[in-house]
Amino acid sequence: MQKTKLKHKAEHWQKRLLTFLKWVLLSIGIGVLIGGGVGTLFYYLLQWTTQTRTNSPWLLFLLPAGGLFIVWLYRACGVKQSRGTDLVLLAVRSPQPLPARMAPLIFIATAVTHLFGGSAGREGAALQIGGSLGYGAGRLFKLDEKALHVVTMCGMGAVFSALFGTPVAAAVFAMEVVSVGQMYYSALVPVTISSLLASGIASRLGAVPTHYILAEVGSGLHLLPALQIALLAALCAAVAILFCQTLHIAGRLYRQFLPNPYLRVLMGSALVIVLMLLTGTSDYEGAGTNVIARAIGGHARPEAFVLKILLTALTLGAGFKGGEIVPSFFIGATFGCWMGGLLGLDPGLGAAVGMLCVFCGVVNCPLTALLLGCSLFGYSGAPYFFLACAISYALSGYTGLYAEQTILYSKFRPQFINKRTE
Amino acid sequence: MQKTKLKHKAEHWQKRLLTFLKWVLLSIGIGVLIGGGVGTLFYYLLQWTTQTRTNSPWLLFLLPAGGLFIVWLYRACGVKQSRGTDLVLLAVRSPQPLPARMAPLIFIATAVTHLFGGSAGREGAALQIGGSLGYGAGRLFKLDEKALHVVTMCGMGAVFSALFGTPVAAAVFAMEVVSVGQMYYSALVPVTISSLLASGIASRLGAVPTHYILAEVGSGLHLLPALQIALLAALCAAVAILFCQTLHIAGRLYRQFLPNPYLRVLMGSALVIVLMLLTGTSDYEGAGTNVIARAIGGHARPEAFVLKILLTALTLGAGFKGGEIVPSFFIGATFGCWMGGLLGLDPGLGAAVGMLCVFCGVVNCPLTALLLGCSLFGYSGAPYFFLACAISYALSGYTGLYAEQTILYSKFRPQFINKRTE
Repeated sequence: MQKTKLKHKAEHWQKRLLTFLKWVLLSIGIGVLIGGGVGTLFYYLLQWTTQTRTNSPWLLFLLPAGGLFIVWLYRACGVKQSRGTDLVLLAVRSPQPLPARMAPLIFIATAVTHLFGGSAGREGAALQIGGSLGYGAGRLFKLDEKALHVVTMCGMGAVFSALFGTPVAAAVFAMEVVSVGQMYYSALVPVTISSLLASGIASRLGAVPTHYILAEVGSGLHLLPALQIALLAALCAAVAILFCQTLHIAGRLYRQFLPNPYLRVLMGSALVIVLMLLTGTSDYEGAGTNVIARAIGGHARPEAFVLKILLTALTLGAGFKGGEIVPSFFIGATFGCWMGGLLGLDPGLGAAVGMLCVFCGVVNCPLTALLLGCSLFGYSGAPYFFLACAISYALSGYTGLYAEQTILYSKFRPQFINKRTE
Repeated sequence: MQKTKLKHKAEHWQKRLLTFLKWVLLSIGIGVLIGGGVGTLFYYLLQWTTQTRTNSPWLLFLLPAGGLFIVWLYRACGVKQSRGTDLVLLAVRSPQPLPARMAPLIFIATAVTHLFGGSAGREGAALQIGGSLGYGAGRLFKLDEKALHVVTMCGMGAVFSALFGTPVAAAVFAMEVVSVGQMYYSALVPVTISSLLASGIASRLGAVPTHYILAEVGSGLHLLPALQIALLAALCAAVAILFCQTLHIAGRLYRQFLPNPYLRVLMGSALVIVLMLLTGTSDYEGAGTNVIARAIGGHARPEAFVLKILLTALTLGAGFKGGEIVPSFFIGATFGCWMGGLLGLDPGLGAAVGMLCVFCGVVNCPLTALLLGCSLFGYSGAPYFFLACAISYALSGYTGLYAEQTILYSKFRPQFINKRTE
């Protein structure tokens, strides 16, 4: 009796270990090829576009041509209504398939948007590239539906990680973003391995992980800065809502007044060009990572966050491609730098807090935001960062970048709600 | 029409903000009184017991008397079958009430166990003290059932945080441990505020946050140490299973052969004393934080982890009180130091990894383990720590310290299982 039980248990564990090993191998493949390969390529492509645009500022005037090309490309490939990252989230939590052609499309379209100076990010694109390639790899190996969810997350984490150089935050992001309040721990080992390998290879190939030097946060927690940071976080939640709402409204107005996508992208480009020229700087073109670094260093213009919100909404709503995550960093960092200074905080610390809070407010991922903060600024600020992210998470309500994201628990009362963001 | 909608929205937000403020005030109260007050008191009480025992080693021979007192105390207060931390977990996820007398009982019993040299921890006791006081405070304010879940988590996080000095990890632990795979984000702001205040006050009152200096981990991720760490993590998962199983088996054997609780604690004490004397050291008495520090410094005896498993199981199974968490640190650190050295790792790094992995394996909380690692050892090791915790989480199967913990997703296949640990 005892012996059969033991034998049964041994067989059980043998099966478990085989599954475990299968996943280790799969996630190594995804980490190396999709993250380390495609992710690094994407990193260098975007580096090149930014460099080229900086050297040839007149490229901005070709924005309409770039826009027409993107609209044509998507339509030529049969993608009429592009739902981007939403499709990736759906593929993680439902049987909805994820078309593999999404990867090259967003890859090219994001590069074109950046080359001609549209205001857009990269990490949302990374989620789409990685997610759809991961899903495609899973189909190739004839994985079942549930396993496809896991490979999709592996791909998301891997490309994000290669691009940004923050493997832990990238892995947690892939598990946290789909259904907020749930952590897909079935994917824990595969996603972690893929993300670590991706960033490891990317950095070996010369990709520079994002990292900022923050003026000393000081150790321990002090009451006054904690209060200032809490107040700043609450204001950042409002900025996060403003950003999401502006994106939604811009998209709606564009579709309403310019139903033809070619006309829409042309008019949108014109608006973006005019507004960019009026600002008199190239700060708002592309991802604007240099502006973020300047804000962390303590310098930002008060109007920068409003202009970035507007220009990103005008760019993406018109039909250009790219992510909303780096813009959320830009908006948060510039707002936090300015407002933090007004509240009596060190402006650099204000920028760091603002960046994490607006990000947390628009993606509703407090643990990812915390880990991102630790990775970008070091662990000594973790208590402040966590307080800030918690407040921004709660007060940003149910707005979010991704219509297919669900929030499982009420942010205000302890109850299960399973609500979609809006 | 538009106006009524706006008015409706404004009222909605007014209600949300009022709820938010109510929770901020409640969590400040819990953080200050329960965490900063009771938690700090508990910290100093345990400091005193350890100091006293170190100065008077003969106190070990009074262990049987201490045991008799604990059994008598619990029975006099009408607690016959003590389920300890399990009751706290139940109170977070079910309408099951949590008796307030649990707090003073475990407070005193843990101190007695430590004073007379039983092998036990403190953090499990912290969860019980904090959880039941938080729950009691909620009853006092006539909160409804769901709000009681949140105040219970606030209390858990607060006392853990005051005792250990790791507020972020403590807050995440309270939200992660009950139902693994779910994050109770409704409690995010209150738990974070309570935990931060608790550790802030405790450190102002002189409690020293736990922190270790780890020989430089090096920046970036390298293949060879990653492989060594992955292998060590897999072995730690086996150690975690061994620890949990030994605890379960010891409890079962005790109850089977010594059904009378007074006789059980007497015989158990005798066993513990004999074994302690045979080891020829006081290393295994109490929590053994000095042994952990030594292991992180690179020195541990190969047999230490086995002896600590045995002595903790003999102590707790006999009826003594305290936690299993610091023992899991002890076991992991000493095992990791020794085995890490054999695998070619720096023994100190091996100890750090072992400590996090065995903890992660017995409580099934990978994100808490990661944050604990960052807080104790700094963020530079985060990629290694996360890899290690992920592997230990997956390979430790469904064993765990707390029978009332549920694991929502299979560790091996991506599917919902909602399984209790064993």
